[in-house]
Amino acid sequence: MNITQLGEARFPSPIKRTVSDNLSVPEHIISNKQKVGKNNLNFELAGPREKLYFDPAKTKAGIVTCGGLCPGLNDVIRSLYLELTHAYDVHEVYGFKWGYKGLLPENDAPVKLTAEFVDDIHKEGGTVIGTSRGPVDVEKAVDNLVKMGINILFTIGGDGTQRGGNALFQEAKKRGHDLSVVGIPKTIDNDVAFVSRTFGYLTAVEEACQVLDRAHIEARSVENGISLVKLMGRNAGFIAAGATVASQDVNFLLVPEVPFKLDGEGGFLSVLKKRILDRKHALIVVAEGAGQDLLAGKDAGRDASGNLLLNDIGIFLRDEIVSFFKNEKIPVVMRYIDPSYLIRSSPANAEDSILCDLFARNAVHAAMAGKTGLVIGYLHDKFIHVPIELMASEVKELDTAGFAWRAVLAATGQPERFE
Amino acid sequence: MNITQLGEARFPSPIKRTVSDNLSVPEHIISNKQKVGKNNLNFELAGPREKLYFDPAKTKAGIVTCGGLCPGLNDVIRSLYLELTHAYDVHEVYGFKWGYKGLLPENDAPVKLTAEFVDDIHKEGGTVIGTSRGPVDVEKAVDNLVKMGINILFTIGGDGTQRGGNALFQEAKKRGHDLSVVGIPKTIDNDVAFVSRTFGYLTAVEEACQVLDRAHIEARSVENGISLVKLMGRNAGFIAAGATVASQDVNFLLVPEVPFKLDGEGGFLSVLKKRILDRKHALIVVAEGAGQDLLAGKDAGRDASGNLLLNDIGIFLRDEIVSFFKNEKIPVVMRYIDPSYLIRSSPANAEDSILCDLFARNAVHAAMAGKTGLVIGYLHDKFIHVPIELMASEVKELDTAGFAWRAVLAATGQPERFE
Amino acid sequence: MNITQLGEARFPSPIKRTVSDNLSVPEHIISNKQKVGKNNLNFELAGPREKLYFDPAKTKAGIVTCGGLCPGLNDVIRSLYLELTHAYDVHEVYGFKWGYKGLLPENDAPVKLTAEFVDDIHKEGGTVIGTSRGPVDVEKAVDNLVKMGINILFTIGGDGTQRGGNALFQEAKKRGHDLSVVGIPKTIDNDVAFVSRTFGYLTAVEEACQVLDRAHIEARSVENGISLVKLMGRNAGFIAAGATVASQDVNFLLVPEVPFKLDGEGGFLSVLKKRILDRKHALIVVAEGAGQDLLAGKDAGRDASGNLLLNDIGIFLRDEIVSFFKNEKIPVVMRYIDPSYLIRSSPANAEDSILCDLFARNAVHAAMAGKTGLVIGYLHDKFIHVPIELMASEVKELDTAGFAWRAVLAATGQPERFE
Amino acid sequence: MNITQLGEARFPSPIKRTVSDNLSVPEHIISNKQKVGKNNLNFELAGPREKLYFDPAKTKAGIVTCGGLCPGLNDVIRSLYLELTHAYDVHEVYGFKWGYKGLLPENDAPVKLTAEFVDDIHKEGGTVIGTSRGPVDVEKAVDNLVKMGINILFTIGGDGTQRGGNALFQEAKKRGHDLSVVGIPKTIDNDVAFVSRTFGYLTAVEEACQVLDRAHIEARSVENGISLVKLMGRNAGFIAAGATVASQDVNFLLVPEVPFKLDGEGGFLSVLKKRILDRKHALIVVAEGAGQDLLAGKDAGRDASGNLLLNDIGIFLRDEIVSFFKNEKIPVVMRYIDPSYLIRSSPANAEDSILCDLFARNAVHAAMAGKTGLVIGYLHDKFIHVPIELMASEVKELDTAGFAWRAVLAATGQPERFE
Repeated sequence: MNITQLGEARFPSPIKRTVSDNLSVPEHIISNKQKVGKNNLNFELAGPREKLYFDPAKTKAGIVTCGGLCPGLNDVIRSLYLELTHAYDVHEVYGFKWGYKGLLPENDAPVKLTAEFVDDIHKEGGTVIGTSRGPVDVEKAVDNLVKMGINILFTIGGDGTQRGGNALFQEAKKRGHDLSVVGIPKTIDNDVAFVSRTFGYLTAVEEACQVLDRAHIEARSVENGISLVKLMGRNAGFIAAGATVASQDVNFLLVPEVPFKLDGEGGFLSVLKKRILDRKHALIVVAEGAGQDLLAGKDAGRDASGNLLLNDIGIFLRDEIVSFFKNEKIPVVMRYIDPSYLIRSSPANAEDSILCDLFARNAVHAAMAGKTGLVIGYLHDKFIHVPIELMASEVKELDTAGFAWRAVLAATGQPERFE
Repeated sequence: MNITQLGEARFPSPIKRTVSDNLSVPEHIISNKQKVGKNNLNFELAGPREKLYFDPAKTKAGIVTCGGLCPGLNDVIRSLYLELTHAYDVHEVYGFKWGYKGLLPENDAPVKLTAEFVDDIHKEGGTVIGTSRGPVDVEKAVDNLVKMGINILFTIGGDGTQRGGNALFQEAKKRGHDLSVVGIPKTIDNDVAFVSRTFGYLTAVEEACQVLDRAHIEARSVENGISLVKLMGRNAGFIAAGATVASQDVNFLLVPEVPFKLDGEGGFLSVLKKRILDRKHALIVVAEGAGQDLLAGKDAGRDASGNLLLNDIGIFLRDEIVSFFKNEKIPVVMRYIDPSYLIRSSPANAEDSILCDLFARNAVHAAMAGKTGLVIGYLHDKFIHVPIELMASEVKELDTAGFAWRAVLAATGQPERFE
Repeated sequence: MNITQLGEARFPSPIKRTVSDNLSVPEHIISNKQKVGKNNLNFELAGPREKLYFDPAKTKAGIVTCGGLCPGLNDVIRSLYLELTHAYDVHEVYGFKWGYKGLLPENDAPVKLTAEFVDDIHKEGGTVIGTSRGPVDVEKAVDNLVKMGINILFTIGGDGTQRGGNALFQEAKKRGHDLSVVGIPKTIDNDVAFVSRTFGYLTAVEEACQVLDRAHIEARSVENGISLVKLMGRNAGFIAAGATVASQDVNFLLVPEVPFKLDGEGGFLSVLKKRILDRKHALIVVAEGAGQDLLAGKDAGRDASGNLLLNDIGIFLRDEIVSFFKNEKIPVVMRYIDPSYLIRSSPANAEDSILCDLFARNAVHAAMAGKTGLVIGYLHDKFIHVPIELMASEVKELDTAGFAWRAVLAATGQPERFE
Repeated sequence: MNITQLGEARFPSPIKRTVSDNLSVPEHIISNKQKVGKNNLNFELAGPREKLYFDPAKTKAGIVTCGGLCPGLNDVIRSLYLELTHAYDVHEVYGFKWGYKGLLPENDAPVKLTAEFVDDIHKEGGTVIGTSRGPVDVEKAVDNLVKMGINILFTIGGDGTQRGGNALFQEAKKRGHDLSVVGIPKTIDNDVAFVSRTFGYLTAVEEACQVLDRAHIEARSVENGISLVKLMGRNAGFIAAGATVASQDVNFLLVPEVPFKLDGEGGFLSVLKKRILDRKHALIVVAEGAGQDLLAGKDAGRDASGNLLLNDIGIFLRDEIVSFFKNEKIPVVMRYIDPSYLIRSSPANAEDSILCDLFARNAVHAAMAGKTGLVIGYLHDKFIHVPIELMASEVKELDTAGFAWRAVLAATGQPERFE
């Protein structure tokens, strides 16, 4: 579509990264066996299929939630149950307790889900079937799934969980047991490839905004007040960036995708000093995975799932700022806030509730059609099927050349780089 | 991408509308002068351009908000101002008062926006520059814009507002006055073509959910309690559908896109009666534009903007339900709730704040590049340029064959049709 | 205690109702067999007694909720249950369904309460055992209570409910059946004598404030915007006054305790007109029982409990305002909001949760000690025992000569009288 | 008033602290020159006086906020300003910046308050005139107050602030300068004598409840989850106790008023272990001043106001619990949450807004009447005048023999003592 142009544009823009008029977006992006270039993957559209693989009357399904809390887990559990029972007449649905360890027969027995059990669970945060970190003992778990006659397993979790789900399916296949493993990607950080927005992310941004509002008040109510808020984001700064743009009160945002220097003229501490002298308060947001290079040499170990533990950039930064201003003989009032537990245990907001419902129902459709080894993805407002291996092999990060990051720079007024 | 399939799917699905495995979604949908079929429109991608048309030092911009309230209006005003001043060094930005009537010199003078004026406005609902319904007096308005030296006008409003903006640009062109008119689509109903989500919509869904929660409590706390909630949606039921899926407490949803019968065996009242007898309470949501055929013969007139006024389906339905159960000799407790004013005057939630920021900044980019007669659109998570005439010629409705409506049916358990 | 005085005060105060330095408040107000003047009633302090009248092992208790919804009903039910079971080892506790009609054997059977049943009920509004309006059939109800072996009945409701409770106790006494009836006063309007604050009142004020905030935005966002909000308060304007002082955005408050004229120079409409001309917007709050004299001659009938129905002052006032400005040829935008159902169905806020817990536990103490025919009162932060007849014979109204009303006048800036 | 008694109560109560029927509460507690015993102090009732001491036209007032943040500070500032200007026609009102240091001429100049400045400030937390800790330099401050011609100073702060205010008044008196110093007690902890409820306390309880809800979810969603929340309360556990009763989800509450042992059979850790083994999760609340004896020998120093800094019982307890369970070889998931900054920077809720308004207006009445050296108190729902020295000489603590603490024991089910 041509857009009327008043005349030739001729003044240089002050903005560095710009977009050519030649780029366009098609209205319809779903195509039928579309011929595409090598780099354009094509994904199966999710949704109910004409034929089922499993006979509903003989099907038993299980659900497991793994890893850290995330708003919406109970919404997903509830909609999985409702779609299985109401739409497909599958009535044996089990919630395995406390994450993957619940797949083992020696641990707490699974809960048989009922309409009464799931009735109001979407109104509270956390997961009613419990969660834990840690890998699955594949052989013992499959022994138990076979013994229980489970045909479908929904794995709600992050990368590690999904890789575990893949191993379960492979092992079941070896044994000739039909097991559909369908993953629902869970990462509050929103850093999964082929999923434009993971459930819980928007709720986290909304909750984080409220924290930023309070932190801003703390900073503004004292002379030279500095509030430093650490937000979730191990590998990607989506929550921190979203909250920064939504709040419009943040002065500095530090994310994993953009390395920064603390010292020197263009370094973060100098720029912060300038702001304190000019404005007498500052609000800083740091994503937990930012600036890990500054913490080099400090090995923080691994958690129960084997994830590398991060050194705590929040505490480090707080201490660096305090000692910097002490040296500069500028009295400041420092407030450090780490609201992670309060954010991730929130119930889902309305938009996330909708997203959870759709992820869950599409997962059921895929499973009932006999698909396995996949995770439900979400691209361009469409739900899709993504092979587990593919999703697990890619990561998603903030595009610091894109409009979202430009919005961060505009909202904070911070320089492009601290260097 | 191929998805592993356990074997041939062979049982019939109970679900009617299904999706073939052949459909796929490409990863990348932005293309360069892409060749597309006739039916696939292509839109210019929004964003800052390499060259500006307007010299910032000599540019004066105006902002006008028209029509009903919508969460996020102040966020848009604020980000327009900040992008103009901080990114482009345009410092004369006026807020015209009370909608289009503010363009006329005899009415309240425009406010010159300042950093202090806009500082905290995004934290409250409504519009700080005021709004009104009603068309613009094109000739007098352009006289005044020319006299004031306004080069850029941002029109925040619905269809009628945008058509008015187009007329202003055409008239200015006739007079040889460079006027870039860039529209930002405002409809809480989310019913604008080429905009997958309008600002304010998600906030409205979230606020509506809280109302539904209360209405559900009202119904459940008395014997045969019926709560009827009327939600916004003149031509499309997006808010009502979104809130229904998010809430999961709604038993019946009536929207403009799906006609319904009240009487007879499959009619709405019979189905409602069955539920009351079975469960002793019901929560009904009706979008304001639903069932207009039932009100035929009652001419409700037009509002100040010339929009057809709708007969009030909420009041009508309430009365029909009450007299139906009276006839049936079933005592019911009826609660009718119309929360529209409370919802639309809410401040924007976090996600809408982000959306407003991006709509606004992209509008500034388009205007500074000298584009005119366009509205900022938003498709597949991309901001685009849409000619005003094109947007004004199309409408967007709920796709009752799509997954969103299927989610409504699953959440309510209601039949596909009341007929 | 003497307060240092700088010197003799000698300028006249602009404030009319003032307080003498001679008035004082004692620190301790609980006394033992205190001798007091005729006008100073003394009430027994509530709390656990040294001896019980009922043998816990043989005691059966019932709970009934009557009348309109009020925040905190579920908190009261839950704490009654927990105090009975945990503190006194009474394990047979029944929730009668749907108000007093649940006492009759032909209606829905009572629910036997359990720890699981009450676990999370305090987190939602309404009443889990249901409510209704309407008197109790005393003879049949006592027949049934005797048959069921109920010794203790907690009646949660307003005046009528408590009078009903008294009748039940008197009838049981006639039959020689030990029945302790202990009332917990429930009126969202806060208009009960000998109760300085009823549960649910503060939550209602808080919810009403949010409505006022939105109504204020509606008024301010259009030229000559008038928002009229009707709040609860049949006989007393406590909610409306509390919300007015808390919000600080209200321009005019109309309550039952202060009659007002609409017409004439000092009438409400003239004063409103002046404000609209000066400030272009106004926010008006009217309590539902205000201005009933203006509606004289219109008989609105009675509800199922036999309460006089009020003519709707909100609708009346809205129409009067609209036609007044039409006559004055001043275009206004009128918004009428009646949020009653949304407010009363709210869950209790923190302070009300605490209050409910204490009302409930003190009711259990009174009942276990064998007291009957009483209602739990709350004066000067102390819980007390009030005979039902005494409470039912008095009303509580706003003291328009006191500090609370002075706060209203200060917050609104309205004249003392519209006359 | 006599309460009907069914018969003689004769079973022993399981509850230890009980109340005699002989205790009574009078209806009216305000008396005129009441004769009272030695132990019953009598306080002047606050409110507008018939005569003013200061001539409004010649009066200049100042406001200062000191110490930590507390919800409602801006409400107080706003109502002080509005009462001074609207009710008394005092138009020179200054906000001293950053606490007591703002009284010194070398620091940031005071802000002259205006209607526009205070318009919306009550809708946000913190203090718009800033605060700080630290004593006042009495001589230099009085020099400056005399030079500025300030006659009235409102001091909003805790004990130290009020003692400072007293010193200012004494010094001004020595110099023959009429200075009315009227304090408004500010302590989020609610631990001030002669004030039954300080502003900000209820908001803190409400905010704390939301934190407890999230902490409860954290604990419940993992196997052997323990959430430990530290709440404000240096000398008294009012916030922690209020939130515990309101939330009903807390299992253990530790406050300064009740010492506790960690080790041994009846010690806290043993009781916690029992719960974890039985129920697999626990929610613990600790007030910041609890268990200071356990931290003996660790000197935490003093803050800028000279207050003793507390050793951090939260961190200590977290570490003790973790190592205890490690020794016991019971794997637990520990979450430690310290939400203080998020709570205290909240805007006031509705009830606190009302309280702030009344404290402020009564402070203005006292000052205009020429009273000085006093603080506004609040007993039995009455506002009173308390000499600064008296208030500063007493403290208020939880009455662990009273009904509020009994409510805590009932809500948590914890033993009376951990010993």
